[in-house]
Amino acid sequence: MSFTYNRLNKDDVAVLFVDHQAGLLSLVRDFSPDDFKNNVLALADIAKFFNLPTILTTSFEDGPNGPLVPELKEMFPEAPYFARPGQINAWDNEDFVKAIKATGKKQLLIAGVVTEVCVAFPALSALEEGFEVFVVTDASGTFNLTTRDAAWDRMSQAGAQLMSWFGVGCELHRDWRNDIEGFGGILGKHLPAYANLIQSFSVKK
Amino acid sequence: MSFTYNRLNKDDVAVLFVDHQAGLLSLVRDFSPDDFKNNVLALADIAKFFNLPTILTTSFEDGPNGPLVPELKEMFPEAPYFARPGQINAWDNEDFVKAIKATGKKQLLIAGVVTEVCVAFPALSALEEGFEVFVVTDASGTFNLTTRDAAWDRMSQAGAQLMSWFGVGCELHRDWRNDIEGFGGILGKHLPAYANLIQSFSVKK
Amino acid sequence: MSFTYNRLNKDDVAVLFVDHQAGLLSLVRDFSPDDFKNNVLALADIAKFFNLPTILTTSFEDGPNGPLVPELKEMFPEAPYFARPGQINAWDNEDFVKAIKATGKKQLLIAGVVTEVCVAFPALSALEEGFEVFVVTDASGTFNLTTRDAAWDRMSQAGAQLMSWFGVGCELHRDWRNDIEGFGGILGKHLPAYANLIQSFSVKK
Amino acid sequence: MSFTYNRLNKDDVAVLFVDHQAGLLSLVRDFSPDDFKNNVLALADIAKFFNLPTILTTSFEDGPNGPLVPELKEMFPEAPYFARPGQINAWDNEDFVKAIKATGKKQLLIAGVVTEVCVAFPALSALEEGFEVFVVTDASGTFNLTTRDAAWDRMSQAGAQLMSWFGVGCELHRDWRNDIEGFGGILGKHLPAYANLIQSFSVKK
Amino acid sequence: MSFTYNRLNKDDVAVLFVDHQAGLLSLVRDFSPDDFKNNVLALADIAKFFNLPTILTTSFEDGPNGPLVPELKEMFPEAPYFARPGQINAWDNEDFVKAIKATGKKQLLIAGVVTEVCVAFPALSALEEGFEVFVVTDASGTFNLTTRDAAWDRMSQAGAQLMSWFGVGCELHRDWRNDIEGFGGILGKHLPAYANLIQSFSVKK
Amino acid sequence: MSFTYNRLNKDDVAVLFVDHQAGLLSLVRDFSPDDFKNNVLALADIAKFFNLPTILTTSFEDGPNGPLVPELKEMFPEAPYFARPGQINAWDNEDFVKAIKATGKKQLLIAGVVTEVCVAFPALSALEEGFEVFVVTDASGTFNLTTRDAAWDRMSQAGAQLMSWFGVGCELHRDWRNDIEGFGGILGKHLPAYANLIQSFSVKK
Amino acid sequence: MSFTYNRLNKDDVAVLFVDHQAGLLSLVRDFSPDDFKNNVLALADIAKFFNLPTILTTSFEDGPNGPLVPELKEMFPEAPYFARPGQINAWDNEDFVKAIKATGKKQLLIAGVVTEVCVAFPALSALEEGFEVFVVTDASGTFNLTTRDAAWDRMSQAGAQLMSWFGVGCELHRDWRNDIEGFGGILGKHLPAYANLIQSFSVKK
Amino acid sequence: MSFTYNRLNKDDVAVLFVDHQAGLLSLVRDFSPDDFKNNVLALADIAKFFNLPTILTTSFEDGPNGPLVPELKEMFPEAPYFARPGQINAWDNEDFVKAIKATGKKQLLIAGVVTEVCVAFPALSALEEGFEVFVVTDASGTFNLTTRDAAWDRMSQAGAQLMSWFGVGCELHRDWRNDIEGFGGILGKHLPAYANLIQSFSVKK
Repeated sequence: MSFTYNRLNKDDVAVLFVDHQAGLLSLVRDFSPDDFKNNVLALADIAKFFNLPTILTTSFEDGPNGPLVPELKEMFPEAPYFARPGQINAWDNEDFVKAIKATGKKQLLIAGVVTEVCVAFPALSALEEGFEVFVVTDASGTFNLTTRDAAWDRMSQAGAQLMSWFGVGCELHRDWRNDIEGFGGILGKHLPAYANLIQSFSVKK
Repeated sequence: MSFTYNRLNKDDVAVLFVDHQAGLLSLVRDFSPDDFKNNVLALADIAKFFNLPTILTTSFEDGPNGPLVPELKEMFPEAPYFARPGQINAWDNEDFVKAIKATGKKQLLIAGVVTEVCVAFPALSALEEGFEVFVVTDASGTFNLTTRDAAWDRMSQAGAQLMSWFGVGCELHRDWRNDIEGFGGILGKHLPAYANLIQSFSVKK
Repeated sequence: MSFTYNRLNKDDVAVLFVDHQAGLLSLVRDFSPDDFKNNVLALADIAKFFNLPTILTTSFEDGPNGPLVPELKEMFPEAPYFARPGQINAWDNEDFVKAIKATGKKQLLIAGVVTEVCVAFPALSALEEGFEVFVVTDASGTFNLTTRDAAWDRMSQAGAQLMSWFGVGCELHRDWRNDIEGFGGILGKHLPAYANLIQSFSVKK
Repeated sequence: MSFTYNRLNKDDVAVLFVDHQAGLLSLVRDFSPDDFKNNVLALADIAKFFNLPTILTTSFEDGPNGPLVPELKEMFPEAPYFARPGQINAWDNEDFVKAIKATGKKQLLIAGVVTEVCVAFPALSALEEGFEVFVVTDASGTFNLTTRDAAWDRMSQAGAQLMSWFGVGCELHRDWRNDIEGFGGILGKHLPAYANLIQSFSVKK
Repeated sequence: MSFTYNRLNKDDVAVLFVDHQAGLLSLVRDFSPDDFKNNVLALADIAKFFNLPTILTTSFEDGPNGPLVPELKEMFPEAPYFARPGQINAWDNEDFVKAIKATGKKQLLIAGVVTEVCVAFPALSALEEGFEVFVVTDASGTFNLTTRDAAWDRMSQAGAQLMSWFGVGCELHRDWRNDIEGFGGILGKHLPAYANLIQSFSVKK
Repeated sequence: MSFTYNRLNKDDVAVLFVDHQAGLLSLVRDFSPDDFKNNVLALADIAKFFNLPTILTTSFEDGPNGPLVPELKEMFPEAPYFARPGQINAWDNEDFVKAIKATGKKQLLIAGVVTEVCVAFPALSALEEGFEVFVVTDASGTFNLTTRDAAWDRMSQAGAQLMSWFGVGCELHRDWRNDIEGFGGILGKHLPAYANLIQSFSVKK
Repeated sequence: MSFTYNRLNKDDVAVLFVDHQAGLLSLVRDFSPDDFKNNVLALADIAKFFNLPTILTTSFEDGPNGPLVPELKEMFPEAPYFARPGQINAWDNEDFVKAIKATGKKQLLIAGVVTEVCVAFPALSALEEGFEVFVVTDASGTFNLTTRDAAWDRMSQAGAQLMSWFGVGCELHRDWRNDIEGFGGILGKHLPAYANLIQSFSVKK
Repeated sequence: MSFTYNRLNKDDVAVLFVDHQAGLLSLVRDFSPDDFKNNVLALADIAKFFNLPTILTTSFEDGPNGPLVPELKEMFPEAPYFARPGQINAWDNEDFVKAIKATGKKQLLIAGVVTEVCVAFPALSALEEGFEVFVVTDASGTFNLTTRDAAWDRMSQAGAQLMSWFGVGCELHRDWRNDIEGFGGILGKHLPAYANLIQSFSVKK
């Protein structure tokens, strides 16, 4: 059975942040709050660093779900941003899909809250339309490990690739020589254990 | 490899509650009792909300397995209800299968106790007959995480989709505008963390 | 070293609910949301059942901390209720302490959110003033198990007794014959595993 | 600060089994069912082996709490057995306390279901009356680790000693030479890992 | 994608116990010793109950691996028993495979110690030869959850079905009416929580 | 037994950061790196906010232990800073103790890496000299939960109070009205879940 | 669906150690440091024992990632060793791939740090080129269980086989008689629980 | 309440290894085998390094308990060594106690298998006789965390100090300058994470 490595390629990728809203975040319990915030912002920094087309969407911002987290709003002021009037599956929002298709990219990085809905639904829809789907698992959160495991299984069986923000960054970067300081800066900012290595190393040089 | 998103459609779905009996529930240890009760009743509320044909079945109610939990009996007084005389796999009970087929639905939501038997057996039988099977993982319980993981793997490899009650509700609802208060009410009742968001939001309006 | 069993006595007890507010509850992660909601309401039902003087207090209800959870408000409409203007330790609020002392009780049941602040601070203050303090550990929540363990240790070393709502109810009730149906009803409502026992038993009678 | 080692002495000990009833056992979730059954029966075997005066008590056997587990009934057919009419704290039952005092023992081994009530209440009462109290922690069960930890802390702070059935057996036995086969037999029966050692050893002799 | 439910059929099954030896059992750490012993003996009782052809094999019994656990030897005194002279994969032992093929069965239940070797190797070999392979996951043990998860994945991807002893028993039994007392007896013996249900039920009848 | 509440008082407190060095931090495994970094910086922000005299110390900065983490250096440029030539217990360094005594404070907040050495040793020394010692448990890290639990027990039994950075901040602040924005800012920065509450609240105002 | 057992064959295997560097190892948190060190060295001993062609590679040794762990350097002084100038995916380094192909082996054992990058990337690349890939899961480490689970799923779905060092050793060795002392020595060195069996056995002989 | 810091002093300490036997070690399940072996040998290295009088004892070496682990025998060939004829509490063996008293030390470091018996019994006996007792918790093992927690509580309440081998080493060493290479060597050998720091540092010097 032959296998094709659908490898993330920075020229082929768009990033979707789905429903990272202040209210919904209080539902996320498969990560500590510090870890989850860090993971989401790390993915955002990666999207910026590689100049990936990035699309934001939210549902019912003016209800209990709350506003998009301000950090994302600030980091992507120019990004297409769809406050969906009601569709739960973002892919049911035509403008959102149009914006994705307008990027011309065939690889989609998806992260969102909560995993089994805001991530899984558009992921499955995108797979059906032939996109290569990469779930950024650690920038996506949900109620507990049971719902997470079920959601991961559903997406994986459908052909989505499960990744982490660190894996995403490394697969996109390909070679440290492409910009060692820039990429190292992201790691230093979002991996305290790596920052310690850098710090110990710098002092000793 | 092309993928078809077999998406839950409220017109295509029937719900099966298999052996949620007072005695058997004491065997469930992969959830806290509060969590599990909440999950089962949430699925029941979703079945009611979407008017999904719902079928109840039990085994040996007048033995140690105990009676069907009273909440389900009360919520679905008109539902077909099969107290199986002995078949362990509910699908081996002809009346049960006839009732399912009589609904004319091709998508089955299955929940039950215990997962590797009362859920997995009919799930595999239904898959063999060409139904689309969705396991409501968090409304299904078993002895421990080892048996759960094995059962999930067996069903997933056979083509069942692993879901949670929240994912089921959202995939059926499609769009908040279809009935925001009704669906929000279910979330408020079964997701205390979401109820808190609603509460905070309402007060501040 | 002689030991005196400071046993809860329904004529000697007052109950303090400290800062169970909709916003603050989103910080609680040492319990699942279902479990925690159940525990808090179980304690409330116990307070009602034994007619214990109950005192409510909150901090900054009209800020992000959010309103008192509506269930508590509804269950204790006549209870003294102190929306503290700013004191973090409820015991620093003179009206709150006056209300406690006005009950004439020497035993205090304290529950709150978060454990290391809203419970521990008044608990330590009350101990210093000679009250017998009983922490209802499972109706009190906090960020994680690390902060919980530290808070429990601090209170225990100071002389507080660590209890659970079930232990509180049983120590107060003393004898099932005092009202078997009433107390059994509370257990059936808040202990699904016990409700299953009742259900199996009733059917078989 | 001087310390006296209140060491279990087989001539000074009585054993109390409190409310190990078929219904209540379904509430125990801080042990796997296999582990808990094994622990309780191991303690029973130890009580038999050392001919310790053993006292059984239950609450509401003819209600949902269910009958005393049959194994205990069979192992101690002559033991004083108090089906309490309603007292939750077994120590509030005068006959139970009289039977304890009639043994003339000053050391009490207590095990029961659930820990924070059926064990903790009589443990605290006994401590107040000057008994040396040893809680057999692993033959006592409860709802979850939170309630267990709180109950252990309350009893420990009051002066109870927290033990396990294995520690109890070893502290009573003192010296293997007192009866190596008899005591080894208990270990082989209740410690599968030790049985394996014995088996490997025997074959090789 | 069509699916065939390869359902366990008592006329088509043989059972393989691979290397449940006293020494090797000390390596098993993904179960408590009580749980694991119970699971293995439950599978053995099921094999006896359904008169399934059962085959035993061991490796280096007279070395540190130790003798076959005595309970299995006693339960299956007539079973083919292969003390392999050195082959690690039992399937590399021609006599073992011959004995399997001599049963004429096409479904194999495999349990063993340790999972990733003594279970996985013959499971993969049998799959290659066209057998339907069912791994009894909870009667198979290994060093830790990491090695277990990897071994399960390898076998599942190859087409083995992951089951538990309880699922095996129920899938074989098909209908309680085939022998309610016999099968109930196995459950009562190996599921203490189910025994409690039976006990509560019997008393009340 | 009377109890005195040794309550943190911002006029009586000094803060000790012991050995938060880039190398040593790689040993900390009882917290995720994100959580730990956040906790240490939260304590630092609290020390700044209340203008608490703060003392820094390190051991062997120019060896594998690595430099003091740069954030602490930058936040407390004027703080007494003792790069100990070799003493493992910082209290054995006379200059360090002199600096502490020079603050005139009787309450010490201690955090460090690793807990059982860099925190516990000076904590025990300070207790012996009559200081009130408060261990900031979540800004102190070590190899694993076993060593942490042992270290906490040793310090607690000696009279140290176990706290968390959040408890410390609240006990010092006493009353929100003292500076609601300043203190709220610290919470918003270091408690992402609280930041979400603030965000949801602000938008809705 | 037919299955071919791609069984490890010592004549067909090459081993790749990817980025086991002193700095990077501080990032590994899905194993205790002792366990991980033991696992890596066990795999190395297996590679030596079977004389498997072994290839070493590192990234940025002279930066914070640190030097290759000295034990590997010493054990494989003659092994091809590629200090990659910048490629993150080792397979992007032509010399590395050439060296692999020069071995003429079609089976690759891959271990590395961190799993989702240094292992997964070359694993996927090798699969695409038709190699049989075996991931040595317990000699590969990463940040936490979330990233590990995602990485395992990605590789497993692509056709990699997940193994452990013990499974690798046993699948290669095939038969104890091939060299019982040599292989037993590896187990005794890296499995303390097995060493205890050997020790108990030897003494008793 | 004044506190005296009973600080480990290398001139006042004797070390007791109690029943670290090859058979008994198979019972230890509160540590991974690698971790536990490492911890015991680390304590042994510390005892050697500081030339602490060390006493070995075992029970029934020629039975299933198995021989003393060979590493300890080899490291302390001259140490008093008591193969107890039957006493379970080593303190009941007069020769063992005489040997301890002959050292003239008042501080005892105790480690053993299993914690609640082989460690706790002599620890409590020694406390009663006025020794200062330090339990080396991570060089002591037992069946599970429940029995461990109970044993720790019993010893702690009696006045024993709970430590880890790392804490012991550091408290004895006092000052790195006393022998930086020797002590650093122990850390490098038994703390792989520290070895990595040393390695990274050395290379960069």
